Amino acid sequence: MNALPTPGRGSLSDVRVVEIGTSVAAPMATQILGDFGAEVVKVERVGRGDDSRSWAPPDWDGQSVTYLALNRNKRSLALDFKDPRGMGVLEELIRRSDVLVQNLRPGALAALGLTPERIAELNPRLIYCELTGFGPTGPRSGQPAYDPLLQAYSGIVSITGDDGGEPARVPVSILDIGTGMWTALAVFEALRRRERTGSGTHVELSLLQTALTWVSMPLLAVAAGNGVPSRLGSGLAGVVPYGAFPTSDGHVFISAGNDDTWARLCSALDAEHLRSADGFATNRERVQQRTEVVAALSAVTRGFSSEEVLKRLTENKVPCSPVHTLDQVLADEQVRAIGALTPVEHPSVRNFQVVNLPMTFEGAYPSAPTAPPALGADSADVLTEIGLAPNQVTELADSGVVGLAEPAGADAPIRKGDPA
Amino acid sequence: MNALPTPGRGSLSDVRVVEIGTSVAAPMATQILGDFGAEVVKVERVGRGDDSRSWAPPDWDGQSVTYLALNRNKRSLALDFKDPRGMGVLEELIRRSDVLVQNLRPGALAALGLTPERIAELNPRLIYCELTGFGPTGPRSGQPAYDPLLQAYSGIVSITGDDGGEPARVPVSILDIGTGMWTALAVFEALRRRERTGSGTHVELSLLQTALTWVSMPLLAVAAGNGVPSRLGSGLAGVVPYGAFPTSDGHVFISAGNDDTWARLCSALDAEHLRSADGFATNRERVQQRTEVVAALSAVTRGFSSEEVLKRLTENKVPCSPVHTLDQVLADEQVRAIGALTPVEHPSVRNFQVVNLPMTFEGAYPSAPTAPPALGADSADVLTEIGLAPNQVTELADSGVVGLAEPAGADAPIRKGDPA
Repeated sequence: MNALPTPGRGSLSDVRVVEIGTSVAAPMATQILGDFGAEVVKVERVGRGDDSRSWAPPDWDGQSVTYLALNRNKRSLALDFKDPRGMGVLEELIRRSDVLVQNLRPGALAALGLTPERIAELNPRLIYCELTGFGPTGPRSGQPAYDPLLQAYSGIVSITGDDGGEPARVPVSILDIGTGMWTALAVFEALRRRERTGSGTHVELSLLQTALTWVSMPLLAVAAGNGVPSRLGSGLAGVVPYGAFPTSDGHVFISAGNDDTWARLCSALDAEHLRSADGFATNRERVQQRTEVVAALSAVTRGFSSEEVLKRLTENKVPCSPVHTLDQVLADEQVRAIGALTPVEHPSVRNFQVVNLPMTFEGAYPSAPTAPPALGADSADVLTEIGLAPNQVTELADSGVVGLAEPAGADAPIRKGDPA
Repeated sequence: MNALPTPGRGSLSDVRVVEIGTSVAAPMATQILGDFGAEVVKVERVGRGDDSRSWAPPDWDGQSVTYLALNRNKRSLALDFKDPRGMGVLEELIRRSDVLVQNLRPGALAALGLTPERIAELNPRLIYCELTGFGPTGPRSGQPAYDPLLQAYSGIVSITGDDGGEPARVPVSILDIGTGMWTALAVFEALRRRERTGSGTHVELSLLQTALTWVSMPLLAVAAGNGVPSRLGSGLAGVVPYGAFPTSDGHVFISAGNDDTWARLCSALDAEHLRSADGFATNRERVQQRTEVVAALSAVTRGFSSEEVLKRLTENKVPCSPVHTLDQVLADEQVRAIGALTPVEHPSVRNFQVVNLPMTFEGAYPSAPTAPPALGADSADVLTEIGLAPNQVTELADSGVVGLAEPAGADAPIRKGDPA
């Protein structure tokens, strides 16, 4: 099925990353870096680990899908760094690394002594990425935040959904994942700066700023005096018809971006009467009569199956798309052809697969993914690498400062958590 | 208001980028690179330029907000490269550049002779980023695509909006902008590879793959056998209550991620009767009785103003947020405190400002933005830089192969286009 070339080695293979991450944003950032070849050590709480390990359902053979989706190409060190011995380990790890990414509660790491100043002192070449909800200054800077709450705060919720209905949110974590992507970009930039200056950098990112970037176009439109946009469901402000239309067995997405396409659309659906109906002839008129046009076209599309509408529109060069459900996406021929998902061997999750980083280099995806680690799976190895003797490792493990790997399949049971 | 340090110089100041871009994805990619200091030459059609120049409303003193939001830190070369003389100019520009980013229709550039092979021959060190809708292979690979259509194709529309209502789309261009972000990451990665190998790379990205990354978590959940998720409006699958709730004068966003928070929420709103009402006591029960819980809590929140709900919940440590409209976001104290928007001098757009790249290095945003260029504003300069004599520039301009800068304020009038 997938004839894509095999992955090359990423350019970050000499870059060591420490993640003190939880949930989505920081794990996404370091997963991207790992996909480009970085060696990522994920520092997790002893016993419980990353919050996302306990977010289920959905689960995959007993493990959290969220955790599995965000933690490939990493090693896990279970460490209690609230204990001074654990903090000693963390500091040594920071000394030997190139990048630190953390998204604990604002101020939590500094409260344990790891201020940006202390971190720079430990390792002046370190690139220290601090991820927060609301940013480093201002009245809300200390507040924790979750992706959906920040979607509301940043105006995204106010423009999502149907004008008549309740406000909706974007159902995927575009703030968390987006902040992870921006963090990875910041790391690349900071690495280039370090090549010139020899110095690391303190980089700050926030869900709020990521959100403002998502809404930058409508936000600047408001700044320019265009008025606050209304919620348009699946529609667009400047073009009608554009959006999801009902059929006899579901919905199809139709785009008629200009009057020629509108004409072809009407003809394709045997609806010539709509084409130049009163006030329907030009896009400008149709935008003014949005409700009427959508109702009239919906009445037509309801008379056909989705398959029939798509066939007729495609034949008439009217841009259109099925409104796929996620099971249809998984089975889709195009999705399979580009090799977007890759099976990965996992000790306990059957048929595990990952969604590849969305880019190819000379036709190859950048990484050969490894399975997300069990909690503490690499604790002993990492401690040994930073210079601890076997008896020191045992001592730290016995005193609960470090968590060692559980036997495969013996992960902590999934607990209910706050998947925000 | 904004006491943030002034921007440092980005690390890409020795990187020359050619954008043959249109609309959103490629312009976003190169704007990011420009923000990091790259010198970006935007190659546009003579006379009309980037499609997004004609997308209005919304406009800002007669210019398209979309264009203005995506094209800072660039120079504009208006060039007809369908003409052999124009192609000669483009080839020379490619020879002298480090990066080429293009998102014309699939195959359009190759049809003019600029195949990946030809491009690599012109400049073996070039990083060539090709952005398409559906990716390089598969039955749909040649098809054009728009962000909203791909949102439908990739399952995003199927999970956005209210379960009872019509499917909705994400009202911001997360596929286009997201693909721009992934492209910028790919360029950084390819630059690092080139430092080692001396060779450029052909990088391919697509809106479809970006979309699959956005839905990776629910998609893998379906792959794991969890069933197709339903649309939940502003809600979350695993937590109730979580979402936007109506008040006497609008909506507020409330998150009660665990039973303790639920107890504090009920108490804060004088709704102790809800706390342990039949089947309301635990999150597991509340998830099963989602409709009933949401209705009961909505009945309570409707009895208060938004301000009062937010005050009571904040006092009781229940995570919550106003559901801001975009004008409120612009005026928000926190948004202003972090200096997310920066005023930029523009020859004809009054009070122009940009949304900064969402990251700071040692407290400074990475770029000092310049205004988006008028069409052809830099044509003469760019041609001179690549070695053309003044009389050659004049000749190309006279024959319409190159468009020179119009006097300020004389931009082509805004036309209706397809803002997809």
